[in-house]
Amino acid sequence: MAKLLKAKPLADEAGGLIKTQVQEWKEVGIAPAIAVLMVNGDPASAAYANAKGRLAGKLGIGFELLTFEQNVTEAELLREIQRLNGDDSIHGILIELPLPAGLDSSRLAAALDPLKDIDGITPANKLACMMNEPGLRPATPQSCIRLIEAAGIPLSGKHVVVVGRGETVGRPLMQMLLHLNATVTVCHSRTADLARMIKAADVLVTAAGRLNLITPEMVHTGLTLIDAGINVNQDGSGIAGDAAPETADHVAASSPVPGGVGTLTTTILFENVLHALKLQQDAGRLQI
Amino acid sequence: MAKLLKAKPLADEAGGLIKTQVQEWKEVGIAPAIAVLMVNGDPASAAYANAKGRLAGKLGIGFELLTFEQNVTEAELLREIQRLNGDDSIHGILIELPLPAGLDSSRLAAALDPLKDIDGITPANKLACMMNEPGLRPATPQSCIRLIEAAGIPLSGKHVVVVGRGETVGRPLMQMLLHLNATVTVCHSRTADLARMIKAADVLVTAAGRLNLITPEMVHTGLTLIDAGINVNQDGSGIAGDAAPETADHVAASSPVPGGVGTLTTTILFENVLHALKLQQDAGRLQI
Repeated sequence: MAKLLKAKPLADEAGGLIKTQVQEWKEVGIAPAIAVLMVNGDPASAAYANAKGRLAGKLGIGFELLTFEQNVTEAELLREIQRLNGDDSIHGILIELPLPAGLDSSRLAAALDPLKDIDGITPANKLACMMNEPGLRPATPQSCIRLIEAAGIPLSGKHVVVVGRGETVGRPLMQMLLHLNATVTVCHSRTADLARMIKAADVLVTAAGRLNLITPEMVHTGLTLIDAGINVNQDGSGIAGDAAPETADHVAASSPVPGGVGTLTTTILFENVLHALKLQQDAGRLQI
Repeated sequence: MAKLLKAKPLADEAGGLIKTQVQEWKEVGIAPAIAVLMVNGDPASAAYANAKGRLAGKLGIGFELLTFEQNVTEAELLREIQRLNGDDSIHGILIELPLPAGLDSSRLAAALDPLKDIDGITPANKLACMMNEPGLRPATPQSCIRLIEAAGIPLSGKHVVVVGRGETVGRPLMQMLLHLNATVTVCHSRTADLARMIKAADVLVTAAGRLNLITPEMVHTGLTLIDAGINVNQDGSGIAGDAAPETADHVAASSPVPGGVGTLTTTILFENVLHALKLQQDAGRLQI
């Protein structure tokens, strides 16, 4: 029977460490807090934002949810970002995606203070990720790597196939894996023979956002499968990953959806808040 | 017999187009010109700089070679870069690498005006390369792609193995190949089984800088081999690529060293000068 890579124990362990550090910051007069900008309309975004708020509460991190109507202008959001950049009581800023059409998420991302950019979406942090320099890394690829390591796979020299080349997962993940000395293959919608690529892999990370893209015939019993896909499941009752459910029985280890990458991602976002605080402290921007 | 992908006809064709465009710029009062900064001491650098100077002359592009003694300080070079950034008669700036120890090439690169950065080494151009946005791309990966396309290989859906993850070739090349819809595998010194990776490839680009890294046993007759390696050959009499000479007989097509990637790279550098001029014009910085 394949090993199930459950995220909850990892998230709980990380959460415990975060709580301790949050307490330490509070003892020196800093109450860690983040702000989330959300435009109303997308029910999934609202659910994600709420989940972050609940976890923030458990971890002792302040959480401010700023919601905007669908007709909000880019200029208004930019003003709000500028205000939060300058607000010393806010240490992390998050823009809940997707945004309605007409709002340019990359222009908004570029306006974020890189030291408060806890999802690693600013140009400065993207560049740091590529160059392996200090900075804030996006949470989802970090979660994927944490799950691989928790499966007992040392990444150096391993062959990792990443399915998806998006800005949130695939692109930063490939950079991070290369810096960890993995051999990396990036596949995507135009890949001619995905199954053939996967046959050669030690680890498969799928972040394509396509239900049942990965099937038992494509995998092998030596494979560790990390499923970073988030899709509405077949009967519309919940979420499912990119791998068909029965795939898990044909690999060495796999992460479930839900209860895998996404579960750990939210916790890692708050690790990033602590990392952001360190960077702000090093930059002399905290009053301790 | 395997096809030899000679760069000279491609370089000549590109050179003809460059000459025409240089003439057009001159007709509107702009004399395209570049400056090359070189610190004395590395004989290879001197040879490369001279080769650029000769080609610039043939293409009608102004060429200013600024040489510095080994004990030049970073501050002096930075001042020189600032001066060239502000010099309206210079449209491209190049730093001949490698620099002596003690000079931080990435700090110098960051000081270059991105619109004059004809080798695509500034942070802004590296980010543009990753994000597939307008900007100046490094010449060597462009040369590799040009040779693949000249071999009649449409990159979309093809599996390209890149050996090397360096800043000059491997890293930008993988980004550019992904944007061209290739499936990309990045191998490097820590890759466990390079031969196995190459077996699955349609195209192999090697930029490892290791003599005889690629041998006939590792390749196959369906493979297009682009050799971007530059090494001193076995008897020290000249340069050789990463592939052992006899490898060429066991692939579908291959680019020679010398006479391959490097030959075309110098010409593409001058295409970049024309691209830089366009970007400077679009930014309203040329007096026409």
